[in-house]
Amino acid sequence: MRSVTSEQVGHPSDPFAGPVLVVGAGLIGASVAMALVRAGVETYVRDVDAVVAHVAASRGAGSDADTGAEPALVVVATPPDHLAAEIKAALETFPNAVITDVGSVKARPLAELRAAVARERGSTLDLAHYVGGHPMAGSERSGPLASAADLFDGRAWAVVVRPDCSSHAVRAVERLVLLCGAVVVHMSTDEHDLAVARISHLPHLLAALTAGQLNGAPVEHLALSGQGVRDVTRVAAGDPRLWCQIVSANAEALAVLLGRVRDDIDVLLESLELHDDSRIEQLLRAGVAGTSAIPGKHGGPGLDVSAVTVAIPDEPGALATLFADARDAGINIEDLRIDHDPGRAFGLVEIDVATEYADRLIEALTARRWSAHR
Amino acid sequence: MRSVTSEQVGHPSDPFAGPVLVVGAGLIGASVAMALVRAGVETYVRDVDAVVAHVAASRGAGSDADTGAEPALVVVATPPDHLAAEIKAALETFPNAVITDVGSVKARPLAELRAAVARERGSTLDLAHYVGGHPMAGSERSGPLASAADLFDGRAWAVVVRPDCSSHAVRAVERLVLLCGAVVVHMSTDEHDLAVARISHLPHLLAALTAGQLNGAPVEHLALSGQGVRDVTRVAAGDPRLWCQIVSANAEALAVLLGRVRDDIDVLLESLELHDDSRIEQLLRAGVAGTSAIPGKHGGPGLDVSAVTVAIPDEPGALATLFADARDAGINIEDLRIDHDPGRAFGLVEIDVATEYADRLIEALTARRWSAHR
Repeated sequence: MRSVTSEQVGHPSDPFAGPVLVVGAGLIGASVAMALVRAGVETYVRDVDAVVAHVAASRGAGSDADTGAEPALVVVATPPDHLAAEIKAALETFPNAVITDVGSVKARPLAELRAAVARERGSTLDLAHYVGGHPMAGSERSGPLASAADLFDGRAWAVVVRPDCSSHAVRAVERLVLLCGAVVVHMSTDEHDLAVARISHLPHLLAALTAGQLNGAPVEHLALSGQGVRDVTRVAAGDPRLWCQIVSANAEALAVLLGRVRDDIDVLLESLELHDDSRIEQLLRAGVAGTSAIPGKHGGPGLDVSAVTVAIPDEPGALATLFADARDAGINIEDLRIDHDPGRAFGLVEIDVATEYADRLIEALTARRWSAHR
Repeated sequence: MRSVTSEQVGHPSDPFAGPVLVVGAGLIGASVAMALVRAGVETYVRDVDAVVAHVAASRGAGSDADTGAEPALVVVATPPDHLAAEIKAALETFPNAVITDVGSVKARPLAELRAAVARERGSTLDLAHYVGGHPMAGSERSGPLASAADLFDGRAWAVVVRPDCSSHAVRAVERLVLLCGAVVVHMSTDEHDLAVARISHLPHLLAALTAGQLNGAPVEHLALSGQGVRDVTRVAAGDPRLWCQIVSANAEALAVLLGRVRDDIDVLLESLELHDDSRIEQLLRAGVAGTSAIPGKHGGPGLDVSAVTVAIPDEPGALATLFADARDAGINIEDLRIDHDPGRAFGLVEIDVATEYADRLIEALTARRWSAHR
C-alpha cells in the first residue's frame, strides 16, 4: 500500500480530456457523479432504469441525456453480478476511454471479463484501459436518493493496479479518486479481496447470523437488549440482495475465513461441553487483540481514548448544551455513542476523548451540573 | 415480564430496615454501593482485596469498615465463579437478611448453591431469602475506578423470582432496583439465561471471533477498515477472564445458539461452494429481520428514523455548533454516530431523527452552510 497525493498525479481539479460517464446511478454511482460535478467535471449518468438515472441527474449527478459524447473515463457502478458485462461493453463502445469500476470485489469480475474476451476469437479488446477501484464508503441505505457529493470525502478508495494496466489508465483513476475527495490506496486484485473479506464481508455475515438468532425471541427477552447487541448487528440491516452478490463474488476468500470461524465455534462448543475454560479464554483474548489491530482515527496508531458517560434528558437542545459545555472546556470529542434503554426518559451519551482530557471534561461538565463519569 | 413502579413496592427512597452490605467492589458492586449512598442508604462494601474495597469506599461507595452491623440486604457482586459460595456464605452469616446478586447468569450459580446446601446434612439454610438479580449495565472497563452512582439509571434490571422466594425478599430486591434508579423486569431463572444468551453472550462471542480474524492481517488491509467492522467488534474488547466465566456459566443456552450459528455457517460454506445464492440471501434476510426485532427507544416499537449525514471539521466546538443549529430547528436527535476514516481531517456524523423531520433538519443545516444529506 502507498498513498498518492494530488502533487503526484496532477492537481485534482484538472479536468479530464473529455466527459466522464457513470454507468449505474445507485448510491455509489450517483454519488461519484455528484462529486465529479462538484469538481467541475462534465459528467453523464446512465442506468438500466432510465428513471433512476433521471432522479440521479435531478439531484446534481450530471446529465442523463444521451449526447453520444465520447467519454474520457467510464465509471461502472453496477451491482457485482453485472460488472464484467458492463466493463466489457464500455471497453468495446469507447476504445479510447479509461474504464474503472467501484465494485466491492475484484478478482471474480476480472476473471469473468477475461473469459468473455477469450471466448471471442480475434477480439482486440485491450484490458490495459481497465483499472479496478473500490471506494470504502457506503450505507445501509441505497439508491440515488441516498447519494451525496461528499460521500467519499476523506475515505480510502482502493485502486487495484494490475501489471497489464496502462500507466495512463492508472493515472486517470487516481485522478478520479482525488476529484471525489478520497484517498488513493493501491492494492493488488487478490490483496484487495482478502482485505475486504476480513474487514467487511466476514463482519457483515457474522452480524447477520447474530441478528438472525433474534428472530422468534420473546419480546420480553429482547427488552433486555443493550447497546452491545445493537452495535454488533447494525450492519446486518443492509440490502440483502446486494450483499448476497458481494458475498458470492468473494466466495473463496470468505470461505477460508468462515471455515476458521466454524473451527473456532467447534472449539467453543467442545470447550463448553468439557468445561475447558482455557480455550474459551484464549479465543476471547484473540478477540481483544483483534479489536486493537483496527487502526485509529486518521489511519494512525489507535489514539488512547477514554469514555465519559453523561446522562441527558430526552429533549431537543440537551445534546447542544452538552456539547457547548464540552467546547467551552476546549476538549475535542473523538467519538460518541447514545444508548437508549427501555423505560428511560433520558439518554446516556458515551463521549470518547483523549485519555489525558477525560478528567478535565468530567470536572467541567460536573461544574455545570451534568452527571458525568468514566 | 411485567414492570414494577415505585408505587407498587413502596417509595424507593424508603430506607431498608438496616444497612446494605455489598460483597465485591468491582465496577458493578461499587456502582450499586454508590447508588445506594446517593439514595441515603447506609452501605458497607467488602472485597476479597481490601484495597479494592477501600478504593470503592473512597469514591463514595459507603464504608469499608467492618463494624459487625447486621445488614438488612446483602448484594453479592463477585465474578460468576464465586457467586454460589458468596451467596451461601451470606445466607449463613446473616440469616435474617435478604440476599441478592448481580450475576450475568442465573441457573448455574443457583444449582451450585442448592448442591452445596444439599451436601450439608441438617443444614437449615433457607433459600427463600435469596432472590437473583441482573442489572443490564456494564462497560468494557472494569474495577471500582470505573464505577458510578448513575450507572443503572433507567436501565433494565432483571429480578429473577423463584416459587420458593419469600415475598418479603422479592419486595426488598425490587426496592434495591428502584433505589439504584433502574427498571424492574421480572423473569424466571431459565428465561433470563436464554434471554441474555441471545442478546448479550452470543453477540459477544461472535464479535470476538470476528475480531480474532483481524489478527495477523497486513496493516495495509486493515487500513481499509470502516465503521462497520468497528461496530461489529467493539464489545469484543471486554475483559476476557470475566467473559469466559459468563460464557462458561451459561454453557447450555449458548451451546444451542452457537450450534445454530455453526449450522448457518455450514449452509453458507456449502452455498458459496455450490453458488447457491438463494440460501445465502435467505440468511441475510433473516439478519435484516433480526435487526428490526430489537426494541426501539424507550422499549416501544422501533421509531421510524432516518439518518442525516453531516461533514464536520475535526476541531473542538464543531459538534457544539452543529447541535446548536439542530436545536434551533427544534428537532430531537434520536441517535448519532461519528465515522473517522484514514487520512481525513474531518468527521462524518450520522444523525438519526424521526423520518418526518429529516428534510427539515437538512434544510435548516444547509441554510447554515453545513454539508448535510440523507
